[in-house]
Amino acid sequence: MSIITLTTDYGLKDHFVGSIKGKILSEAPETTIIDISHDIDPFNTAEASYVVGASYLSFPKGTVHLIGVDIERNKENVHIAMQWNDHYFICADNGILSMLTQKIVPQKIVAINIHDRFPPESTDMDIFIKVACHIAKGGLLNVIGKEIAAVKEVTELQAVVANDGNSIKGYVIYIDHFGNVVTNISKQQFKEVAKGRSYEIVMKPKSIKTILPNYSAIASSDKYPIKTYEGEKLAIFNEAGYLEIAIFRSNPSKVGSANSLLGLNYRDVITIKFN
Amino acid sequence: MSIITLTTDYGLKDHFVGSIKGKILSEAPETTIIDISHDIDPFNTAEASYVVGASYLSFPKGTVHLIGVDIERNKENVHIAMQWNDHYFICADNGILSMLTQKIVPQKIVAINIHDRFPPESTDMDIFIKVACHIAKGGLLNVIGKEIAAVKEVTELQAVVANDGNSIKGYVIYIDHFGNVVTNISKQQFKEVAKGRSYEIVMKPKSIKTILPNYSAIASSDKYPIKTYEGEKLAIFNEAGYLEIAIFRSNPSKVGSANSLLGLNYRDVITIKFN
Amino acid sequence: MSIITLTTDYGLKDHFVGSIKGKILSEAPETTIIDISHDIDPFNTAEASYVVGASYLSFPKGTVHLIGVDIERNKENVHIAMQWNDHYFICADNGILSMLTQKIVPQKIVAINIHDRFPPESTDMDIFIKVACHIAKGGLLNVIGKEIAAVKEVTELQAVVANDGNSIKGYVIYIDHFGNVVTNISKQQFKEVAKGRSYEIVMKPKSIKTILPNYSAIASSDKYPIKTYEGEKLAIFNEAGYLEIAIFRSNPSKVGSANSLLGLNYRDVITIKFN
Repeated sequence: MSIITLTTDYGLKDHFVGSIKGKILSEAPETTIIDISHDIDPFNTAEASYVVGASYLSFPKGTVHLIGVDIERNKENVHIAMQWNDHYFICADNGILSMLTQKIVPQKIVAINIHDRFPPESTDMDIFIKVACHIAKGGLLNVIGKEIAAVKEVTELQAVVANDGNSIKGYVIYIDHFGNVVTNISKQQFKEVAKGRSYEIVMKPKSIKTILPNYSAIASSDKYPIKTYEGEKLAIFNEAGYLEIAIFRSNPSKVGSANSLLGLNYRDVITIKFN
Repeated sequence: MSIITLTTDYGLKDHFVGSIKGKILSEAPETTIIDISHDIDPFNTAEASYVVGASYLSFPKGTVHLIGVDIERNKENVHIAMQWNDHYFICADNGILSMLTQKIVPQKIVAINIHDRFPPESTDMDIFIKVACHIAKGGLLNVIGKEIAAVKEVTELQAVVANDGNSIKGYVIYIDHFGNVVTNISKQQFKEVAKGRSYEIVMKPKSIKTILPNYSAIASSDKYPIKTYEGEKLAIFNEAGYLEIAIFRSNPSKVGSANSLLGLNYRDVITIKFN
Repeated sequence: MSIITLTTDYGLKDHFVGSIKGKILSEAPETTIIDISHDIDPFNTAEASYVVGASYLSFPKGTVHLIGVDIERNKENVHIAMQWNDHYFICADNGILSMLTQKIVPQKIVAINIHDRFPPESTDMDIFIKVACHIAKGGLLNVIGKEIAAVKEVTELQAVVANDGNSIKGYVIYIDHFGNVVTNISKQQFKEVAKGRSYEIVMKPKSIKTILPNYSAIASSDKYPIKTYEGEKLAIFNEAGYLEIAIFRSNPSKVGSANSLLGLNYRDVITIKFN
């Protein structure tokens, strides 16, 4: 049994996601198909990159991850398939994979070159589905593409350490279902720069002085019920290893969220200052 | 083949639900995973309780129901697994299961006690997934927890019969996709108190005098097309056995819904007066 | 392995879709269930019709398509099952299937007549599930219904050619996730009427003079980056073969969409004038 995961900005209203699954099952009936997300902010490759990077490790080695965000092939976007950390990724070379390749060197990357074997009315997704099923059935990357040396690098996703080593400047790269905002400052980068120093997380016009081990740790005293702490702002490193600014037990449509209450939005700056 | 169902307030935008499925398939590849809902109002255990109670019976005996709402383990919330009516439920002991245990006595309840076997970065959901896969593969509850006598009781979910036996006072506990509102007054309680008397359902400032057998019964005359009745308010006992106030063929974004047109919201009072 | 697809207006918040899957797996455990959409505009049979017509061909022959939109059986709505183009469709006879039967003659249609074999508390969906599982397991249509000659015709979904043959007048029948609007003017009808003439697509107060082969073709010059063309309006025949008015790289919540920017809504008129 092979697994193919889907990450797209297609939404769930339209028939597109259902059609993708029908085509996969027509081609490779034994495949298990798992949705990661179909609510990626349209054409937001940074969100797609974060979501794929945060979820792939939950799957068995050999899983094929198909990423349907900004995939129309044009002069700037080549179609690629990559073997990396024993997982497979299929997407357009629009920078989505550079968040992964900055951490671990890919095992193999190919530029997909089977487009001329398809009827003219085929879509870019049809190509991706064919490639995904080929890999899911144990096929080799060389059969569907020409090896290339590297994926397109996108540096806007990297948090920057100040020259004096006293601060890290990052950005909001993801806003989750609860309205919590995720930055591009990783736990590893934090530790390397912090070297045990005290620090302050600065967002205008607020700041946070402690990164908690988990959400519930906001309850600093046993004297009060957990409910007392609802609505308080906090910071943690989330499961994906990135700094997240959250509101304890936030509900975007009621109490509000880090996104709404703290006014944090995509690409807003978050700085950690060390003392 | 075992089935694991998922009910969470995680939403479908984030990768969390996909990651849960990946981890389940890594641990128990033969499992069939079915989503019940991931749009539970955040931290609303009453909604989760209603949704799980309304759906579990649609599944074969032996199905494992994993409930991911308000699960962070803390001084008030123990993790539990319960065998009940030949189904299995895994959740935090925050009152979610008391709506079930009020009807039928559980076969077995354990307080999960395997947390110290996990690496420190494991999440509460990782524990639930491990327990769910253990049960799905035929494992015993005693292996993953210590037997306890009862779940936490939450009485706010119970409709109350007046001392004179002439009325039942209930609350809105669920607002569905169509904006129809579901109360905590069950068909069984209604019958026991009604004893065949006529009645009136009172919501301020409106009331309804008849509970219909189904939605289409609103068409009281054959003279007019069904369309004539669109937008009329009605009451039925829904599939889950609870009193539901609905608008015939409601569309929250166009005609309006019971929720919007009648101004009914979570915890609003609904009274049935018997004459 | 049989496949059953689901298209409903039930939404994903409620437990209904999960319950349908539980009932299918209880009855036919080996079935693969695929969601097409559960976000059909409530009671909008035109949308359901479009979505089913656009997606069925992505699935293998023999797939069973269950359509849960406006299914309550009443004096106007008979329950039917249809074998068509080697696929099976189960729905209420409310016009949903006439968009299909206008193209290809059905192989067999039956009016489902097994309702009296069910307990009184059974829902209309319970009947559909039973029929779907019966067909998925290889059962015959005649066993669950009485053959009928035709489905109910709904003509409001047809685009009209002017008497002088110089224009086609169609309507908006679907608004997708990206806010792009789909009309009921098909590529085939366009070709038959156009006979190679030049043309103009007229929407008040705008018009479009070229139907593109795909979205990226909006980039008419290689001199500028693709990004330059974001937000421009365009027309293509979509994957389903229907004329679609789109905004290049539209994002309903940011840049806007054809639906919001051009003010196009359900049933709005779109005319193609030939010169």
